[in-house]
Amino acid sequence: MDTTLPAIICPADLKALPLEKLPALAEKIRATLIETLSQTGGHLGPNLGVVELTLAMHRVFDTPKDKFVFDVAHQGYVHKMLTGRWDKIHTIRQYEGLNGFLLRSESEHDCYGAGHAGTALGAALGMATARDLKGTDEHVVCVSGDAAFTCGPVFEALNNISSHTKRLITVLNDNEWSIDKNVGAIAKYFNTIATHPGFANLHDKAAKFVEFVLGDGARKLAERVENSAKGLLLPQSEGAHNRSTLFEEFGIRYYGPINGHDLPLLIQTFEFLKTQNEPVILHILTEKGRGYKPALEDPGKFHGLGKYNIETGEVQATDKPTYSQIYARTVTDFAKEDQKIVAITAAMPGGTGLMAFKKEIPERYFDVGIAEEHAALFACGMAVQGLRPFLTIYSTFMQRAVDMILHDMAIQHLPVRLCMDRGGLSGDDGPTHHGLFDIAYLRAIPGLVHMQPKDEDEFVDMLWTMANYDKGPIAIRYPRGNGPGMTPKAKPHLLEIGKAEVVADGHDVALIALGDMFATAELAKKELEAKGYSVALINPRWIKPLDHAVIETYARKVKVVCTLEDHVLMNGFGCSVMEQLAIAGITTPVVRVGWPDEFVEHGTPAILRKKHGLTVENTVAQVLSKLA
Amino acid sequence: MDTTLPAIICPADLKALPLEKLPALAEKIRATLIETLSQTGGHLGPNLGVVELTLAMHRVFDTPKDKFVFDVAHQGYVHKMLTGRWDKIHTIRQYEGLNGFLLRSESEHDCYGAGHAGTALGAALGMATARDLKGTDEHVVCVSGDAAFTCGPVFEALNNISSHTKRLITVLNDNEWSIDKNVGAIAKYFNTIATHPGFANLHDKAAKFVEFVLGDGARKLAERVENSAKGLLLPQSEGAHNRSTLFEEFGIRYYGPINGHDLPLLIQTFEFLKTQNEPVILHILTEKGRGYKPALEDPGKFHGLGKYNIETGEVQATDKPTYSQIYARTVTDFAKEDQKIVAITAAMPGGTGLMAFKKEIPERYFDVGIAEEHAALFACGMAVQGLRPFLTIYSTFMQRAVDMILHDMAIQHLPVRLCMDRGGLSGDDGPTHHGLFDIAYLRAIPGLVHMQPKDEDEFVDMLWTMANYDKGPIAIRYPRGNGPGMTPKAKPHLLEIGKAEVVADGHDVALIALGDMFATAELAKKELEAKGYSVALINPRWIKPLDHAVIETYARKVKVVCTLEDHVLMNGFGCSVMEQLAIAGITTPVVRVGWPDEFVEHGTPAILRKKHGLTVENTVAQVLSKLA
Repeated sequence: MDTTLPAIICPADLKALPLEKLPALAEKIRATLIETLSQTGGHLGPNLGVVELTLAMHRVFDTPKDKFVFDVAHQGYVHKMLTGRWDKIHTIRQYEGLNGFLLRSESEHDCYGAGHAGTALGAALGMATARDLKGTDEHVVCVSGDAAFTCGPVFEALNNISSHTKRLITVLNDNEWSIDKNVGAIAKYFNTIATHPGFANLHDKAAKFVEFVLGDGARKLAERVENSAKGLLLPQSEGAHNRSTLFEEFGIRYYGPINGHDLPLLIQTFEFLKTQNEPVILHILTEKGRGYKPALEDPGKFHGLGKYNIETGEVQATDKPTYSQIYARTVTDFAKEDQKIVAITAAMPGGTGLMAFKKEIPERYFDVGIAEEHAALFACGMAVQGLRPFLTIYSTFMQRAVDMILHDMAIQHLPVRLCMDRGGLSGDDGPTHHGLFDIAYLRAIPGLVHMQPKDEDEFVDMLWTMANYDKGPIAIRYPRGNGPGMTPKAKPHLLEIGKAEVVADGHDVALIALGDMFATAELAKKELEAKGYSVALINPRWIKPLDHAVIETYARKVKVVCTLEDHVLMNGFGCSVMEQLAIAGITTPVVRVGWPDEFVEHGTPAILRKKHGLTVENTVAQVLSKLA
Repeated sequence: MDTTLPAIICPADLKALPLEKLPALAEKIRATLIETLSQTGGHLGPNLGVVELTLAMHRVFDTPKDKFVFDVAHQGYVHKMLTGRWDKIHTIRQYEGLNGFLLRSESEHDCYGAGHAGTALGAALGMATARDLKGTDEHVVCVSGDAAFTCGPVFEALNNISSHTKRLITVLNDNEWSIDKNVGAIAKYFNTIATHPGFANLHDKAAKFVEFVLGDGARKLAERVENSAKGLLLPQSEGAHNRSTLFEEFGIRYYGPINGHDLPLLIQTFEFLKTQNEPVILHILTEKGRGYKPALEDPGKFHGLGKYNIETGEVQATDKPTYSQIYARTVTDFAKEDQKIVAITAAMPGGTGLMAFKKEIPERYFDVGIAEEHAALFACGMAVQGLRPFLTIYSTFMQRAVDMILHDMAIQHLPVRLCMDRGGLSGDDGPTHHGLFDIAYLRAIPGLVHMQPKDEDEFVDMLWTMANYDKGPIAIRYPRGNGPGMTPKAKPHLLEIGKAEVVADGHDVALIALGDMFATAELAKKELEAKGYSVALINPRWIKPLDHAVIETYARKVKVVCTLEDHVLMNGFGCSVMEQLAIAGITTPVVRVGWPDEFVEHGTPAILRKKHGLTVENTVAQVLSKLA
């Protein structure tokens, strides 16, 4: 590694470097990322892919005046390192350290945060249009992966760009991957461009062209050459079929594809594009995981991961299966017996575990891309035809499909199984990834059944119950990672819908503990019993319909009711218990354990639970305060 | 009108008619629609535009075996008339009559209901894919207006079609209008095709071609002619630019455009398309309002309207301004003084009243199409730049943007003003249009401010407060139609956020009445006072933050608390009052007036409020039951 490189504190340091030092800087950034993330975990692959892109952007543009909008923003580590945060990159995704995405509160260079794909282009268009209205002259540069072009909001933005601004630079960072391999017609379309025979010698032509233009004063020449630019930077069509049409139909001038790891070419191209008075899209080809062999060999795994062995790329295997793994194994087994079962994912075959289903029953496995709204509609259409769709989407991403769950599923009583992985705290990914709102946005939907299991065995029973429920939409939330470690019994049981499980009787306190908070309640029960109290323990199982009878019976019997949930308290499970007691006119005090009415930061579940009181100690303390 | 036409009870009757009788049948349908809807109101324009299309579809295909999926389904009246519901068409949008959209529960010919745009293609793809899996042979025909192509979910579906089925017929019904004139690049693209010089003599060529193909056995010839078909049905490109590319890039064979009022051509084309073994899109050009001069002259007005004079097309004017009109007038006036204010709508300049803003300040008015997700992101980008966006979307359509409100606005504290027209019961449009869920999906979002005014004067104060609030997202819900008729004062007041208005003191009962339910509470107060009770009347103003102090003070003081809201009870306003009292340990009984945990049918507000107990009588009865 080049030891003569100065420290990069801010973008000005980067601009002061001689051009020929940049490759060494790129190498240093990569080495730092590979080493640091081996200890912290994180989105290694995407960041290794955008080192040159980010360097070129900061070389040519001036943040915070100019606005960089990164889609999803998991590829923002390099940007963080170049904007005052290099010395903190080892804290990324750690409690009180840097966030794993961009955050407006973290730096003035982060003009827009994100977490879900497909938002950058719309936000960038808003910024560009506002700039035009204000009459200022900053540049707005949006960086979107090719995967974002499976998202509806991106097309909604594309449809509006040419009407709303004359100046917006979009970088299409094409690496053929989202979290997993991309799907659909648009991915094929991008691939057609990238593998076009005309591309083989395009690099040289493009480089020469840009050099020529810039060598003689970009602004002066820009207008004259814009038509030839198109011809030079775009592979010539072989027949009548003009490959630029898709973006050109949207009124956006298309340039590319160019090699996204060629720093001088990137810099020159940006210098040219910043002179253009029309919306442009620059298509660059990058390698996810560039510079790190294990990541190049398995880009899916290295999209985002925990700690790994730097030499081999190996991650420590967990000894127990995760909820995601159990989910996929179970639904795959059910589907082997039941031809009606189909599995649908929105670009998450790895995270949801559904890769297992894909391998064993590929004809009934559907990955629709990062398209939660379409996934929900597609599932509805299948349910109309009598199939049994399992729609598998993280709790936080299901937020995109609220309208379809309400209208298309619930009004029509279509039996779509909503399987929400990461229901509850997500941990080190932070506020955009916590699944803490699904009860709030689902409970008011008439007729929708919603549940959460306390352990792996009950999880399988619930999935079996869902598989056999054809009356309307039915939802389940289950946490990230491991459960308590119960081995599911050989043959699952059908559960009675709306019937809670009374685990232990008692007359002083009733602990009503939803899902993964059941383990906390078990320990709190022991502590309270040690103090001489008689404690009932209830596993509600069903968020909706709530078991009114059991809850009212115990609320009447005990002196304090305590609810526990891995969800925000506001409009959450405990709120529904409070509502039910108020309706029944039961005045027994209710205390609640759950997440507060604020966005929960990133950190380990242990740290965050302790900070926000989702602990045995706080449960006991709250109950005692009412017993006193 | 041809009196020799038999009654059409079912699609078989239509198929039995000689071809030459069809124009007379089309005329009869139009006359029936024009006359019937003049008495009932409804979506006249869209239905007049699809008479021939619907006739051709039922002539060629066989529902319920074949699946027709109509986008939005406000254009389904003709379909209803042809499938056993002609004799009930005069009951449309009346309580207990036909629904104004399609409903699975209404007929076996309605395989899919809707209400919001952009859902049909995804659902149709699900049906087609399920058919392929099951090995059955029904046809799936999706009818989408051109406006739907401004919706993200439509592009998400387009991206997946070619991967997931080989057989799906999509009809692009191009009439250049959604509810108002279409916007964006896609609308321009469709227009370019439709106005292409090659189209002038296309009709004859296409007709001859179809005749030729069908005359000699469609199935046999279909494969041989598919390439020439494309050439014939598509305007030849004048240069290198091939106009079919957009859909062809998505792997969908494009045919058209053809005249959507030419019945024989439509029938022949469908006969041809049903033999095709690839996904196809048929582009037809129709006139919204065809056959009725007033509707042709003002398609926006006749998209959907109330009763009208059949001769003149005039609708009865209301004497008081609606909330929508006051909204638009107020925000336009504010914007004249404050250059930072911008208005954004998602294809609803008429319904939201924003046409007034557009006329007076066109440069700060933005219609983004039926694209609520993008509208929210675009507003966020503008807020980043320091502007003050008023995002104006019906409550029911705001459901599409839940994820963006949570992540992009709330996490980032971006001050977007969420203005939700039709917050509360919508009435005759039915369950897809009632705005009864916004408190449920917004209240759990940390930091989001949400309010509802009791009258027009307070509405203007609230809009003024929103205009001046720059700390984060702030939302308002206001009802469809008229308020109580208060004239706003000359200069609006800033309201204190989170501070309720105590309208009257009392010690027996506290009525806490949100928004348009305030008037009901005022009357209930009088009745209760007549019975000798002392009644406090509270206008909470703020759904979030709730005024804990006032609510707790009165809950401690009185014997019964009663909340009133034009929202579902579950996770609604009253639920938040119950929660707050439980937290405070106040055991005063709470009764609630609001909508039940079921989808509320269509009908007049008066009928539906009476049926579901949102009345003075029920309020009084509920309070008395607890006082007893």
